[in-house]
Amino acid sequence: MQEQQQVAVGIDIGGTNIMIGLITATGERLVEEGIRTWDFPRVEDLIERVHAIATGRAADLGAAIAGVGIGVPTGNSDDGTFHASNLPWKGVVPVVALFRARFGVPVFVVNDAKAALLGEMTYGAARGMRHFVVVTLGTGLGCGIVLNGELVYGHDGLAGELGHTIVVPGGRACGCGRRGCLETYVSATGIKRTAFELMATEVEDSPLREIPFSSLGSKAIDEAAGQGDPIAMKTLRAAGEMLGLALANLVAVVRPEAIFLQGGAARAGACFHEAIRRSMEENLLFLYKGKVAVLPSALPDGATIGASALVWRGL
Amino acid sequence: MQEQQQVAVGIDIGGTNIMIGLITATGERLVEEGIRTWDFPRVEDLIERVHAIATGRAADLGAAIAGVGIGVPTGNSDDGTFHASNLPWKGVVPVVALFRARFGVPVFVVNDAKAALLGEMTYGAARGMRHFVVVTLGTGLGCGIVLNGELVYGHDGLAGELGHTIVVPGGRACGCGRRGCLETYVSATGIKRTAFELMATEVEDSPLREIPFSSLGSKAIDEAAGQGDPIAMKTLRAAGEMLGLALANLVAVVRPEAIFLQGGAARAGACFHEAIRRSMEENLLFLYKGKVAVLPSALPDGATIGASALVWRGL
Repeated sequence: MQEQQQVAVGIDIGGTNIMIGLITATGERLVEEGIRTWDFPRVEDLIERVHAIATGRAADLGAAIAGVGIGVPTGNSDDGTFHASNLPWKGVVPVVALFRARFGVPVFVVNDAKAALLGEMTYGAARGMRHFVVVTLGTGLGCGIVLNGELVYGHDGLAGELGHTIVVPGGRACGCGRRGCLETYVSATGIKRTAFELMATEVEDSPLREIPFSSLGSKAIDEAAGQGDPIAMKTLRAAGEMLGLALANLVAVVRPEAIFLQGGAARAGACFHEAIRRSMEENLLFLYKGKVAVLPSALPDGATIGASALVWRGL
Repeated sequence: MQEQQQVAVGIDIGGTNIMIGLITATGERLVEEGIRTWDFPRVEDLIERVHAIATGRAADLGAAIAGVGIGVPTGNSDDGTFHASNLPWKGVVPVVALFRARFGVPVFVVNDAKAALLGEMTYGAARGMRHFVVVTLGTGLGCGIVLNGELVYGHDGLAGELGHTIVVPGGRACGCGRRGCLETYVSATGIKRTAFELMATEVEDSPLREIPFSSLGSKAIDEAAGQGDPIAMKTLRAAGEMLGLALANLVAVVRPEAIFLQGGAARAGACFHEAIRRSMEENLLFLYKGKVAVLPSALPDGATIGASALVWRGL
């Protein structure tokens, strides 16, 4: 009799979508399915739906679920909770306890950027590196840091909130209640806000002027930039320049060997990535110039794979 | 026959003074003597003088020198060199090889802030902490970081250059060749520059107006502030507010349990430290508010003691 295949459920909870993957211990993603975050105002309904999807798809495959790994903004591996400002569920959500009660298998949580980083470290381009950073550009800006070959959790599991460093004192309002956080400028949402600011301050015609704020995504901005739209190109350059400076400052503090960019907005085109690299190099202290690579992720989507890596590491 | 006492030579090379200590393995400082950095345009003359002081004082004590530990800006433990912009010796200085050739004992180097941190970790208030930061405020601003109980060296030993993070793009010229580095605002030199800026922009009378730029030290500013001088008080508050924001941003990235302040400028009075704490709390992400202590160092001078700790750890 053949042994039943074991899979981990990797869940990536983002501000727009929630991705659910069934993934083997070698990082093979057998299934991936997405649902919309704001369709679930009650976290219990979300868990019910994720359980139905995961157990249904596992049964189709004849696979057994070995554990559940979850990446979510502010996910705290120390106490198994999250407490995010850009998700529907308010207050502290005891996500590990809730999923464990429904699934009856071991459950692990980290913040979404650390999940992405675990994917890059376990199955991606960072294998073997001892000092590196992963920055995820989605609805927000996440960051995971590995130093001396170890993921940096900090004193209570909450290190790596690079997106909530204040880069423009008194600047744009952030979901966290403060102003001027990096992610209000550099993230899918931040890029959109810059596009709207530039449509207000500049006069050039642009296809972006036909799209309302609530519908505009970073993909549309990237496509317009690819067709030479000046507003879209300025938008991506401004975001890239701000990220480049932030990365130069991060390099001065933790000195990684490489920085990996993940997430939807990281798939923006050449003018974004050129601006990031040029601005980072210009702003690097002479000690580091020309020595830190900024690389696209080698994974199609690090977060579900990374969340699944939590399970195999934890078991 | 009594066994000969073993001492380490701890050397703290700063932009103004060089301190030389003879220190036991338990952190007892038997001797400390200072010389002036800019009296030694040739590094060979410096080494000769340090050797004469250390061997002379060790002979007086009847002690044997077990090793030499050096803390110096940009000190690189990986290759035993430094390459600092605010010291008399230009280019890459192979400091470990030069001292080893003269002393004939093991020699270790780290940057000055990491040396201060090793002192705090080995003999000071950070004993037993797994995640903490030491910020040194001298001629420049240094920073050492411990995560998971380990000193963060980064990819090539050059992590922790918080003083060279750019906090005001296009701001004050820095010795590193760029503009707007944190240490151009927050350090003994940075505080002096702010005092001169405020003497230019404000009209209040101040005893600081009698002192030329090249003579003004952070101690005189602190004394004037202690006597209620408005220019001096505004100066220290401005520096404290900028440091508080920088520390809030650093907390978001590495989430330490505590931050220790060391160095001459850290001895400034209440209005400086109140501004640091208030600004840090105001600028902290809600996840960290009220959870990170900012503490004065428990060591009288961490850098020579810390540099000596390098020797006992290395042997």
